[in-house]
Amino acid sequence: MTIDICASVHLSGALPPCPNERCTLLSAMRVLIRDLAKILREKPEEPVELEGWVHRIRELGGLSFIILRDRSGMVQAVATEKLDLTLESVISISGIPVRTEKAPGGIEIQVRTLTCISRAAQDMPYRVNAAFGRMGLETVLDNRILSLRNPALQAVFKVQATIIEAFSAYLRSQDFTEIRTSKLVANGTEGGTALFAVEYFNKKLYLAQSPQFYKQVMVASGMERVFEVAQVYRAEKHDTPRHLNEYVSLDVEMAFIESELELIALEKALLIHIFSELARKNSPELALHQAAVPDAAAVERSPTLSYEEALRIAIKESGNARLFDINPEVERLLCVWSMREYQSPLVFINAFPRRHRPFYTYPLGDTLTMSFDTLFRGLEITSGSRRQHDYQAFVEALPRFGLKAQDMPGYLTLLQYGCPPHGGFALGCERLTQKILGLTSVKEASLFPRDRKRISP
Amino acid sequence: MTIDICASVHLSGALPPCPNERCTLLSAMRVLIRDLAKILREKPEEPVELEGWVHRIRELGGLSFIILRDRSGMVQAVATEKLDLTLESVISISGIPVRTEKAPGGIEIQVRTLTCISRAAQDMPYRVNAAFGRMGLETVLDNRILSLRNPALQAVFKVQATIIEAFSAYLRSQDFTEIRTSKLVANGTEGGTALFAVEYFNKKLYLAQSPQFYKQVMVASGMERVFEVAQVYRAEKHDTPRHLNEYVSLDVEMAFIESELELIALEKALLIHIFSELARKNSPELALHQAAVPDAAAVERSPTLSYEEALRIAIKESGNARLFDINPEVERLLCVWSMREYQSPLVFINAFPRRHRPFYTYPLGDTLTMSFDTLFRGLEITSGSRRQHDYQAFVEALPRFGLKAQDMPGYLTLLQYGCPPHGGFALGCERLTQKILGLTSVKEASLFPRDRKRISP
Repeated sequence: MTIDICASVHLSGALPPCPNERCTLLSAMRVLIRDLAKILREKPEEPVELEGWVHRIRELGGLSFIILRDRSGMVQAVATEKLDLTLESVISISGIPVRTEKAPGGIEIQVRTLTCISRAAQDMPYRVNAAFGRMGLETVLDNRILSLRNPALQAVFKVQATIIEAFSAYLRSQDFTEIRTSKLVANGTEGGTALFAVEYFNKKLYLAQSPQFYKQVMVASGMERVFEVAQVYRAEKHDTPRHLNEYVSLDVEMAFIESELELIALEKALLIHIFSELARKNSPELALHQAAVPDAAAVERSPTLSYEEALRIAIKESGNARLFDINPEVERLLCVWSMREYQSPLVFINAFPRRHRPFYTYPLGDTLTMSFDTLFRGLEITSGSRRQHDYQAFVEALPRFGLKAQDMPGYLTLLQYGCPPHGGFALGCERLTQKILGLTSVKEASLFPRDRKRISP
Repeated sequence: MTIDICASVHLSGALPPCPNERCTLLSAMRVLIRDLAKILREKPEEPVELEGWVHRIRELGGLSFIILRDRSGMVQAVATEKLDLTLESVISISGIPVRTEKAPGGIEIQVRTLTCISRAAQDMPYRVNAAFGRMGLETVLDNRILSLRNPALQAVFKVQATIIEAFSAYLRSQDFTEIRTSKLVANGTEGGTALFAVEYFNKKLYLAQSPQFYKQVMVASGMERVFEVAQVYRAEKHDTPRHLNEYVSLDVEMAFIESELELIALEKALLIHIFSELARKNSPELALHQAAVPDAAAVERSPTLSYEEALRIAIKESGNARLFDINPEVERLLCVWSMREYQSPLVFINAFPRRHRPFYTYPLGDTLTMSFDTLFRGLEITSGSRRQHDYQAFVEALPRFGLKAQDMPGYLTLLQYGCPPHGGFALGCERLTQKILGLTSVKEASLFPRDRKRISP
């Protein structure tokens, strides 16, 4: 009734032999490509077992050269015969690793036995081993199931995993609690934005465009500092390189702040941690995209401009006096300016006019707000603000936004029974990934992107 | 243009004074209740500033006793006058901490000044400071915005945050990559289960009931080991203490396994890590529920039974010969049996009949499958299996499930071009939380639960 296997070995990809003598699993012998150099040092001339995908095959002078790919990297294997293999087949190789300058990476496997575990059909509709950038975006996304095997395309999501991990870890270190809130809501947070309707039994609900209200509830509950990493939905018809109808929002909310400046300080600290974790863990993935992350000093140097100042600078930069809003063109101009003047790829813009921000934003005087946006490498990646926590002021401001108090019982309860000053922001995970790697479209930074036309895979 | 505040101080809740001399923020002076003992040791008789919620007030002999609550705990404060305060108001207190045996926790704040930051209305519809269990489930959920302020109710979600953190951290340590996959899909994974329809522009999509297919795509992409923590949706009409229509699924998938036994070993290792992290980080929260987590030995001792054996034991335990399936009653019986025979709260059941498992499950002989369920304290918390990775065998088996190959182009592409042996499982986050804390209903373990009737807040 007990299980005759050894979790530690099989799960960690440790070196053979399996220390558990009752272990009967074949994969106990498997090693990862990234461990070959170490194995060669410690146990030269001993055979190893590798498992992975056939990335390339080349026949030359009676020899077959295979590039084998596993989750940890690639290595060349040489067999002394012609092999009946197809690209992308899953194989198991037993062989002797040897050092050689001829092989990429300096190690080659001399194949003793080769087993095909899962043979790939010949008619592959996508060339997995094509250089990144050779395939157009539509081809990449139409063939997503296969194109994600390309190391550079897969690297995007290893980078994204680190972004999410570093975001969460930094916030936990600052006493934030992770929350998971419902994505099925009775109405939108912001009002106005198009929502996707869900047939919920005999009712109509909507997919949440933001966890805004729930974050505020949790702050006011006494949790004070919360974050959520989750999908949000916008039924906007845009089909642009900067829009997705479903995206991952990195959401933060915290109590007892005075203004949006503390939120900007928090985001700077967060970005510094994310960038340094990427530099530490993902240099191979960054290299596949010839990408580099900003250092801490570049983040710290980033300017904070008021909305008015930002427009003034954009007008001066462009020579175009007819810029009345922070549109995509202005975002690009400001980042070029910041790079030149501050050697920083980031710009924070605050003091947005009240008419540009949602009803829950905390005012600054009569016409401005304690709000901010973050631009990174030419693109808005964050929007945040201090929120109105005062019940009276909240109710009095609603008519300005065409809203009625009786339509928002949740907000009234939230604010009526002791709500601390608070604020937060949302960072677009795909946009941040896109800009870190220099991808052309945000869709490349979503595993299975949804837009108006794309609904599969 | 630079920001005159000090992120480190404000974000970490460090002790005053703020080392940044340009810092102008009031909250720079704030300390957390959990740090009071340390402050008293290091700087006795110095005033501190606390911010938080009024949990209780009592007037006695011209004195006012306030229990103040912040995110880190509770402390008693004493003012030498009658105060015009309401329960749950947010206040700021400046005062001197002193040791006293009369106060809960041994420390009391002698109030010098008290400011009301946000006054709670008198007509609070929910008693936040009521003892846990005093309020019925419907009252708790109807008043969710306020009931989440109760320390025991909030503790549920601190425990849940640790579960998610520990789950993710353990898997990362074993080389798993976190993924985020679309929740808007063209059809269901399992077939048969009821799905929620979404009006997606001019098309109809469905809310994903599982990331099953996407996990398999990522494994076959060469990522090999992936996990996802995300909402999934089931449009089932059940209204029971074990069902939610929207829940958080802790999903795992890995390549190069031989059978479900490796998955069971992985889940045991995962649960051991989760339980030990809860014991390390959340003893106050566990104590509020008089809950204890199983130790590693209890997890390791847990039996693995075949489906047939499990039914045989349940029949013997109950004396009821008419048990033909692992229903909720059987789940309870088996856990009672396991506790008695193995002193373990867990039971793993494998070798389920093929007719009970989805089409993608790997067969074991003609009638059984390499699949398993996990029972914990009387409730199924996990379902998993090795998956069919062989294209021919997959296509040939589809008619058994009333399915046609041409209806599943995604699966065909997945399996046709080199797919390694693989498998995985999904652990219900709310069910695990529920059973760890001994909650009556799984709905108590969802921040904003959705069921057939409950759609807000």
